[in-house]
Amino acid sequence: MFYGQSFLILKKKTAKEWKYYTNHSFIKRLSNNTLQKSKFINYLIQDYLFLIQFSKAWSLAIVKSENLEEMKICSNTVNGLINFEMDLHINLCKSYGIKKHTLVNATEKNKNIAYTRYVLNCGHSGDFLDLICALMPCVLGYAEIGLKIKNSKPSNQMYQKWIQTYSSEEYQNISQEVGKLFDNAIKLRLGKNYKKTYKWKKLINIFKTSTLLETDFWEMALE
Amino acid sequence: MFYGQSFLILKKKTAKEWKYYTNHSFIKRLSNNTLQKSKFINYLIQDYLFLIQFSKAWSLAIVKSENLEEMKICSNTVNGLINFEMDLHINLCKSYGIKKHTLVNATEKNKNIAYTRYVLNCGHSGDFLDLICALMPCVLGYAEIGLKIKNSKPSNQMYQKWIQTYSSEEYQNISQEVGKLFDNAIKLRLGKNYKKTYKWKKLINIFKTSTLLETDFWEMALE
Amino acid sequence: MFYGQSFLILKKKTAKEWKYYTNHSFIKRLSNNTLQKSKFINYLIQDYLFLIQFSKAWSLAIVKSENLEEMKICSNTVNGLINFEMDLHINLCKSYGIKKHTLVNATEKNKNIAYTRYVLNCGHSGDFLDLICALMPCVLGYAEIGLKIKNSKPSNQMYQKWIQTYSSEEYQNISQEVGKLFDNAIKLRLGKNYKKTYKWKKLINIFKTSTLLETDFWEMALE
Amino acid sequence: MFYGQSFLILKKKTAKEWKYYTNHSFIKRLSNNTLQKSKFINYLIQDYLFLIQFSKAWSLAIVKSENLEEMKICSNTVNGLINFEMDLHINLCKSYGIKKHTLVNATEKNKNIAYTRYVLNCGHSGDFLDLICALMPCVLGYAEIGLKIKNSKPSNQMYQKWIQTYSSEEYQNISQEVGKLFDNAIKLRLGKNYKKTYKWKKLINIFKTSTLLETDFWEMALE
Repeated sequence: MFYGQSFLILKKKTAKEWKYYTNHSFIKRLSNNTLQKSKFINYLIQDYLFLIQFSKAWSLAIVKSENLEEMKICSNTVNGLINFEMDLHINLCKSYGIKKHTLVNATEKNKNIAYTRYVLNCGHSGDFLDLICALMPCVLGYAEIGLKIKNSKPSNQMYQKWIQTYSSEEYQNISQEVGKLFDNAIKLRLGKNYKKTYKWKKLINIFKTSTLLETDFWEMALE
Repeated sequence: MFYGQSFLILKKKTAKEWKYYTNHSFIKRLSNNTLQKSKFINYLIQDYLFLIQFSKAWSLAIVKSENLEEMKICSNTVNGLINFEMDLHINLCKSYGIKKHTLVNATEKNKNIAYTRYVLNCGHSGDFLDLICALMPCVLGYAEIGLKIKNSKPSNQMYQKWIQTYSSEEYQNISQEVGKLFDNAIKLRLGKNYKKTYKWKKLINIFKTSTLLETDFWEMALE
Repeated sequence: MFYGQSFLILKKKTAKEWKYYTNHSFIKRLSNNTLQKSKFINYLIQDYLFLIQFSKAWSLAIVKSENLEEMKICSNTVNGLINFEMDLHINLCKSYGIKKHTLVNATEKNKNIAYTRYVLNCGHSGDFLDLICALMPCVLGYAEIGLKIKNSKPSNQMYQKWIQTYSSEEYQNISQEVGKLFDNAIKLRLGKNYKKTYKWKKLINIFKTSTLLETDFWEMALE
Repeated sequence: MFYGQSFLILKKKTAKEWKYYTNHSFIKRLSNNTLQKSKFINYLIQDYLFLIQFSKAWSLAIVKSENLEEMKICSNTVNGLINFEMDLHINLCKSYGIKKHTLVNATEKNKNIAYTRYVLNCGHSGDFLDLICALMPCVLGYAEIGLKIKNSKPSNQMYQKWIQTYSSEEYQNISQEVGKLFDNAIKLRLGKNYKKTYKWKKLINIFKTSTLLETDFWEMALE
C-alpha cells in the first residue's frame, strides 16, 4: 500500500526505529494470539484516553491549516474520530468486558501522556507540518501494522476486530488520504526540493521522536 | 426565543452596546430593502473570509474542551461550518454574481481581522469559556437578528435568503444548543454562584468587546 | 540606518502602504507641532495597553524559537519591555498628566485590539517567522519614523521625549538587532533562496496586513 | 520553609506521590554519595534540554498572565533562566567533563519529553493556573529537596554544587516568590473558597500528574 512519498522517505530515514515500532512484541503477540487479554485491556483503556487527545490534535490541525482544502480533510478526520471511532472503541471495549464508566474514569499513564502531549505541542509550538508529521507514525503505522497482520493470516480470532479495523478498506483509504494531505502540505510549503530544506531535517526528527514515543505506547501495554 | 441564561444576563450587562449592534443601520436597511446591493456584496465577501476564521475558532474550542460532550458539540459545529455552511455561502454569493475566484482571492479588511483574531486569541490566551464567550455575540446575535427581521415581515425579498438562513428552525436550534453549551460550561467550571466570580467579570468584558467588534463588521460593510 | 535585508525587501514590496504608514498625518502633526495634545494623550493611553500585548507577543516568540540564540534575543526584548519600557511609558504619560490609574483602567479601542490580536494570532496559528514578521512594521517602523523626525529637526519640543526615545541610539541598536534576528531566522529556515518560497509570499502578506493595521493605530489616535 | 498555602494543600492531597518523588533513590544516592557519576551526567545532559523547554513554559506564562504583576514575575523567571541559569548549568556540566557541544547535540529522552510537553500543553490548552500548577512540582520540589539534603549534612562533596544551587538563599527566595505567585493567582481567579471549585480538583490532578512525570525524570537518569 502506498501512503505517500514523504512517508516513504521518513520511514527509510528512521528505518531502525520504524522496524522496532511496527514489529514490537506487543504486535507479534497480538497477531499470533499469545498476547494476554489483560495486556490488551490495558491497551484499550489507554487508547480510549489517547483518542481524546488525538481528536484534539486533529482539531488543532484545522486551526493551523493554510487553506480550505486542508481544513476539510482535517475536519473530516475530527468528525470521524469524535462521532464514530469513539463509539466503535467504546463498543470494542465493551466486548472485552470494559465498562464505559471504567474508560471515563481511567488515568492516563505517563507513556500515553508523553506521546499525545508531544504531538499537541508540535502543533502549538510549531506549524501545520510539524503537527501532521507528529501524527504520521500513529495514523500510518497502524495502517501498515493492520495490513501486515491481516496478510500473515493469523489462524485465531482473539483480536480479530482490532485487526479488521486497521486493515479495513475504510481505514486504508483514510490513511492514503492522510499521506496525500502530508505530501501536498509539504510541497505547498517547502516546494519540490523540500529534502534540501532545514524544515525537512526538523520533520525527520519529529517523525523519529514520535515513532519512539509510539513504541513506548506498546511497552506501556505490556508493563 | 430562549438562548440560555448566561446569554440573557450578558445582554443585560451590555444593553447599550447590544442594542446598537442588533439595530445597526446595516440591519435596518437590510430588512426594509434600502441596503444597496454593493454594500451587501461587500458584506458577503468579507463574511466568506470570516467563516474560515470562525471555523478555526470552533476547532480551537475542541482543543480547549474539558469533556467529550463539549468536544462533540463543537465538532458538530465545525463540521456544519466547513462542510455545509461554506458551500451555502458560496452559492449565496453566486446568486449575487460573486464568483468563487473572487471570494478566495479577497483580502480581509481590518475590521474583519479585528473580530476574528480577537476571538481566536481569547481562545489561545485563555480557556474554553473565554473562547465560547467571544463567539456568543456572533452566533446568538445573528439568531436574534434573523428572527426579528422575519417577524417584522419585510414586504420585499431582496435579501430573503439571508433572512431565511438565520431565522430558520435549523439555525435557531443550533443557537439554542450553543447557548446551552455555554450555560453548562459555565456551571461546570464556575459553579452555581458564577456571577460572583472574577471570571464572570472577565466574561462580561469579553462579551462587550466582541459585541463592539461585531458592530464594526456592519460598519465595514457600509463603508 | 540599515535594519536588515529582508525588511528592506518587504518595504519595497509594500511601498505604497509603508509610505502611507510612515508619513501618516499623525506623524506629520507630531513632528511639526500641530498635533493636538488631546490626540497625543489618546495615543499614549492606547499605547500603554498596546505594550502589554506587545510584551506577550515577544514572550510567545520565545516559545516559538528554534534555538537558544533566538530565545535570548527575544527574552532580552521581553525583559526590556516589561521591566523598563513600561515604566518609561508610565512616566511619559505622567508628564502629560495621565495618571497610572487611568492607564490601568483604560479600555482597548477596536483598532488597538485589531493589530495586537492579529500579531498574537500570527504567532499562535503560525510559526516564529510569521510572528516576528508581524512585529516588524511596529518595531522598525518606529525606528524609521523616530530617525526621520529627528533629522527633520523640528523647531519645537512638544513631543520631544517621544521623538528622542525612538531616535535614540539605544532604540536604533535594538531595532538593528531585531532586523538581524529576522534575517537570520529567515535564512535558517528558508535558506538563501528564500524569496522563491511560498513562505516568503505569506510573509509579504503578513507584513502588509500589519502595516495597514499599524496605520489604523494612527487613525485611532486622531479620531 | 513556607512555599505557599496552595502548595501545602496540594502536597497533602498527593502525599504518597510527593513522598516517592522527593525521596527517590536518585536523590538518596545523590545525597549519600553513592550515585554513579555516569548517572549524574545522564541527568545533567537531559536537564540542559529540560531547561530550554522550562524557559519556554515560563514564557508562555507571560502570554497567559492576567495582569502586569504576574507578567513581571514570570518575565524575571524567564530572564533568570535564559541569561543566568543556562550558563551556570553549562559550567556545572563542564566541571563534570561534559562539553557544550555534547549538550547542544543531545537527544531528549522520552521521559524528559513527557514532563516538559505535558507542562507546555497544560499552558497551551488551559490557562495560567493550569500552567503554573504543572510547574510547581519541579520548582518547589527542587527547593524542598535541596534544603533537605543540605540539612542532612552529607559528609562528602561529590554533588555539592548541585546541592548548593537548590538550597541557596537565592533559589529558596525564588521558590517562595513562585509559591506566592501561585497563591495570589488562585485567589484572584477562584476566590477565597477555591477549594470548593471544579478548577481546584483539576489543579490537584495536574499537580499529581506532574509529580509522577517528574519522578520519571529521576528514573530516566538511573536507567
